[in-house]
Amino acid sequence: MADMTIQEALYTTRAMRRIKKDPIPEDVQARILDAAIRAPSGGNSQNWRFLLVDDPKVRGELGPIYRDCIENLWKTFYADRIKAMQATPDAADSIEMGKVLKSANWMARHFEDYPLLLFAFAQGDPTGGSIFPAVWSAMLAARAEGVGSTITSVMLFQIDDVLKILGVPADEGWVFACCVPMGYPTGRWGLARRRPAHEVAFRNQWGEPLGIEIPEPLWTPE
Amino acid sequence: MADMTIQEALYTTRAMRRIKKDPIPEDVQARILDAAIRAPSGGNSQNWRFLLVDDPKVRGELGPIYRDCIENLWKTFYADRIKAMQATPDAADSIEMGKVLKSANWMARHFEDYPLLLFAFAQGDPTGGSIFPAVWSAMLAARAEGVGSTITSVMLFQIDDVLKILGVPADEGWVFACCVPMGYPTGRWGLARRRPAHEVAFRNQWGEPLGIEIPEPLWTPE
Repeated sequence: MADMTIQEALYTTRAMRRIKKDPIPEDVQARILDAAIRAPSGGNSQNWRFLLVDDPKVRGELGPIYRDCIENLWKTFYADRIKAMQATPDAADSIEMGKVLKSANWMARHFEDYPLLLFAFAQGDPTGGSIFPAVWSAMLAARAEGVGSTITSVMLFQIDDVLKILGVPADEGWVFACCVPMGYPTGRWGLARRRPAHEVAFRNQWGEPLGIEIPEPLWTPE
Repeated sequence: MADMTIQEALYTTRAMRRIKKDPIPEDVQARILDAAIRAPSGGNSQNWRFLLVDDPKVRGELGPIYRDCIENLWKTFYADRIKAMQATPDAADSIEMGKVLKSANWMARHFEDYPLLLFAFAQGDPTGGSIFPAVWSAMLAARAEGVGSTITSVMLFQIDDVLKILGVPADEGWVFACCVPMGYPTGRWGLARRRPAHEVAFRNQWGEPLGIEIPEPLWTPE
C-alpha cells in the first residue's frame, strides 16, 4: 500500500465515479479487503460478507437494473432537489446538485465498465454501524492505492432482482448494505465542497453553539 | 494531527472503551470534527448533525439510561451468545464474548467519566451509508490524535429519553445513528482479532471462493 498519511486519505477520499476500465490487481484487492475487515463491529461479531464482482457477465446483468434504479431515484427522493435546481440554476445548491446528477448519470451509463464492484451485506445491524466502518475502510485503503470508489445503495429499489443475480440466499438474513464500484479515476483527487463543522455540530444541547469555529479545512494538499 | 499512515490508522483503530478522565483539548476536537465532515454522503447532501457532550450534568443524566440499555442488550440480542459462552467457556468465541462483555460493562460503569461523547444524527439515510463514513472518519482522526473511541447504538432501547435529555426536536426527522464515547486510553493500541477476509468474502456469486487467501494481516505494527 502506498505511503499516505491518515489526513490525506480522510480529506481526499471523495465519491469518485469517473473511472477507467483497467482492472484492479489481486494484490491491491487483497489489501483493500484486509483493511476492511480490521474495522470494529458491534460485539466484534463481524456479521458481514463481501462480494467482489468482476465477471463481465454479472456486471452486464446488473447494469440495466442500476440504470432503472437511478431513474427511479431522480423521480422520487431527488424530485424536489431537481425541481429546485431547475428553478434557480445559479444557486450554490443547484450547482452542486447538477454536479451530482452529471456524475451519477455518468456512472449509470458506464456501470458495466467498472472493473470491480464490492457488495457489502450485514446481519443484525439496524443502524449500519457494524458494516459501514468496514466499507469506508475499504474505500480509504483503496484511495491509498490510487483506486477511486463511491457508495451506492440505490439498487434497494430492485433489491430482489439484484440478490437473485448475485445468488444471495433468501433465508439466511443477510441484508444488502451497499454496492461500491471501484476503479482507477480519470480525474484528480481533491477536497470536496462541505459545510463547515460548526454549522452542523452542537455542544451539550441540540441547537447550542459548538464553541469552535472551523471556517477553512484544517488540512489541505501541499 | 499526528503524522500517521493510513495503514496504521485502519489496522489499529479498534473499539477502545477503557479510557482516562482527561479532557480532550478543543483543537483536537476541531481536527476530529473537520475530518468527519470530509466524508462523502448520498448526493453530497450532508444531512448530518453532530452533538458533542462534555457537560458533566448531561453525562450524569445519560449514565443510568446507558446502564439500563446495556442490561437490556445482554438479556435480548446477546442472550444466546452469553448462554453459549457459559456452556463452553473455553471456546474461542466464548473467550471473545467474555472480553466484549467485560469491556462493555466497564464502559457502562464509567459512562459518566468519558470526557467527550459524540452523538451522530442523520436524515433520509435508510442504510446508514451517509452517516457512518463520517463517524468512522471521526474515530480514525481521533486515533491519529491518540484518542480512543467506540460506536454504541444501544441507547436505541430508550431513545425517547435520550433525545429529550439532548434536546433533539421530535418533528424535524433527525434519526439517532450512534453515540461515540471518546477519551485517552488506559491501554495500548493494537490489532484486534478478526476472521480473515477470504472467509467472509466471495467472488462473483455468493458462496464462491474469493480466489485470494489472506491468512495473516498484510500490515503489522513495527
